[in-house]
Amino acid sequence: MSSFTPKDPAFKDRIQASFARQGLMATLGASLAKVEPGAVEITLKPSPAVSQQHGFVHAGAVTSIADSAAGYAALSLMPPGTGVLSAEFKINLTAPAAGDLLRAKGRVIKAGRTLTLAQTEVFAESATGEKLVALLTATMMCIENRDGVAD
Amino acid sequence: MSSFTPKDPAFKDRIQASFARQGLMATLGASLAKVEPGAVEITLKPSPAVSQQHGFVHAGAVTSIADSAAGYAALSLMPPGTGVLSAEFKINLTAPAAGDLLRAKGRVIKAGRTLTLAQTEVFAESATGEKLVALLTATMMCIENRDGVAD
Amino acid sequence: MSSFTPKDPAFKDRIQASFARQGLMATLGASLAKVEPGAVEITLKPSPAVSQQHGFVHAGAVTSIADSAAGYAALSLMPPGTGVLSAEFKINLTAPAAGDLLRAKGRVIKAGRTLTLAQTEVFAESATGEKLVALLTATMMCIENRDGVAD
Amino acid sequence: MSSFTPKDPAFKDRIQASFARQGLMATLGASLAKVEPGAVEITLKPSPAVSQQHGFVHAGAVTSIADSAAGYAALSLMPPGTGVLSAEFKINLTAPAAGDLLRAKGRVIKAGRTLTLAQTEVFAESATGEKLVALLTATMMCIENRDGVAD
Repeated sequence: MSSFTPKDPAFKDRIQASFARQGLMATLGASLAKVEPGAVEITLKPSPAVSQQHGFVHAGAVTSIADSAAGYAALSLMPPGTGVLSAEFKINLTAPAAGDLLRAKGRVIKAGRTLTLAQTEVFAESATGEKLVALLTATMMCIENRDGVAD
Repeated sequence: MSSFTPKDPAFKDRIQASFARQGLMATLGASLAKVEPGAVEITLKPSPAVSQQHGFVHAGAVTSIADSAAGYAALSLMPPGTGVLSAEFKINLTAPAAGDLLRAKGRVIKAGRTLTLAQTEVFAESATGEKLVALLTATMMCIENRDGVAD
Repeated sequence: MSSFTPKDPAFKDRIQASFARQGLMATLGASLAKVEPGAVEITLKPSPAVSQQHGFVHAGAVTSIADSAAGYAALSLMPPGTGVLSAEFKINLTAPAAGDLLRAKGRVIKAGRTLTLAQTEVFAESATGEKLVALLTATMMCIENRDGVAD
Repeated sequence: MSSFTPKDPAFKDRIQASFARQGLMATLGASLAKVEPGAVEITLKPSPAVSQQHGFVHAGAVTSIADSAAGYAALSLMPPGTGVLSAEFKINLTAPAAGDLLRAKGRVIKAGRTLTLAQTEVFAESATGEKLVALLTATMMCIENRDGVAD
C-alpha cells in the first residue's frame, strides 16, 4: 500500500525486537501481525483481562495497540540509531470494541525529520465481518542521541 | 476543589463497583485512589509489565488510567441508571513516564446532559517531587437505556 | 467515492444555503467547491488577509475551512429538520500552508444518530502539484428541536 | 499567575509586532489584550462577519484566537531569534459562542526546547457573567534558523 522507502534496511528486525521489549504488549496479550515500510499491524484478543466495566475492550487497551502500531509505522521510516516517542495522540471511539479480534492498522501520513504524523484504524473482526471501532491520529517524535532511547 | 453536586448520592459506591469490573485496571495493577464529585484519582506503579521499549511506562498504560479517571469523574455527576462511554480523547505526553508512582487526576470541566468534557493530569511522583507527564482531554458520553451499559 | 445515502434528498441546496449564512466563510473568501453525500470540499485562496506572521495561511483559517468541510460532510447525511454543531476537532499541521489554492476535502468516517466522525484533508495546490498541509478529525453533533439551530 | 522567566526580555514588543503581522487577526477584528510570560489573551467581538450558519461565532474563528493565544504564550518563553509554528491542536466546543466579547486566555503548560504544550480557555463575556465556550490544547514548535520563520 505504501510508497515509503525505509532508511534502515533492518527496520523489520528492529521493530520486532523493540516490540518484544514493550512489557505492556505482553501483559495485554497483543501480537505484532505485520511490519511494512510505513505500515504496522498489531492484534489483540478481547478478554476480561483487557475489559472496561461493560465487558467491551477498555479504550485504554484499544489505544495501547493503536499507539504502538502508529509508533512502529513511524519508526519503520526512521534512520538507524534513532528512537521513537509518542508526543501526542487523539483517538475517536466509534463503536464499542468487541468481537473475536481487534486489529490496529497503523500507517504514516507524513514522515518528517523530527515529527511524523501517523494514523491508526482499529477494526473489530468477527464472523459477521469487520467494523471500525477507533481512529487514532498521532504525532511521533524521532529521538537522537538521548541515553536509553533507541528504537 | 470542585463545586459540583452529584445527581446520584451513591456515586462513590457506584464508581468503586464499576472500577472493580474494569478487568484492565486489575491487569495493569491500577488503584482507585480518590472519588469526589467531579474529581477522581487513579494510581499506577511503574513496572516492566506496563513498559514500552525504553523502560518508561507505555503511553497506552498512562492513557488507560487517565481515561478511566476522566470517565469516572464524569460518571460521578451522572444520574442513576446511566452509563459512561469515552467518545474521544486526546493526550499530550509531556515527559517520559517514570518514577515511583503515576497519579492520574481527572476532573470535570463541563458537565452536559449528553456530553461531558473532562481533563486528566498525570503526574509522576518520586523522591524529588512530582512532575507532569501527561495531559488528557476527553469527551465522555452519558448512555441511557442501552442494554449492558450501566455505570 | 462514498457509498452513503443521504436522508434528505435536498441536502445540496440545504448545504449551499447554510454555507451562504456562514459570515466567516465570506470574510475569509472561502468557496463551497463540491457537495456529495458524505463528502464536501471548500477552497480558500492564500492572501495577506488570512495570513499568520510569516506570511503562510494562519492555522485558524486552515482550520475554519477544514471544520466547515467536515461539518457539511456530516450534515449531508443528517435528516431534514436537524442542525449540525462541531463538538470537538483536532488538527495536525503537516506543512506551512502556502501555494495558489487551499482545498479542504471533508468526508464522513462514521455517521451516527447523535455523533458523526468526519475527517478533512487540506491540500495546498500549486504549479508543482498538491501537498497535504493539514489533517483534521472532528466530532459533529446532530441537533434536533433546538431553537435557532437548523442545518 | 505564572512563574515563567522569559528568555527574551523584549518578548512583549516581539509578540505585539508579530501579532500585527497576522493578517487574519485584523480580518477577524481580534485584539491582543494581554501579554505576560507564558500567558497571552486575545479578544474578539462576535459579529455576523465571523459567524457560522446559526449566528454563533464560527468554531474556526474561536479556534483562530485560541490558537494565536496559545502560540504567543509559547513564543513569550522562546529565545530571541526563534519562531513559533503550531504543530497541532485540539479544541472542544463546550457551548455555542455568543455574547458581547470572546476572550481567549492562553497559557503554557510545559515549555520544552523544541515542543511547548499550551492550553487556551475561551470565555464568552456578557452582562450575565462569563461562560467557558471552548478549551484548546496545542503543541507549539520552536523554529530556529529557517528562512522566513521568526517570531
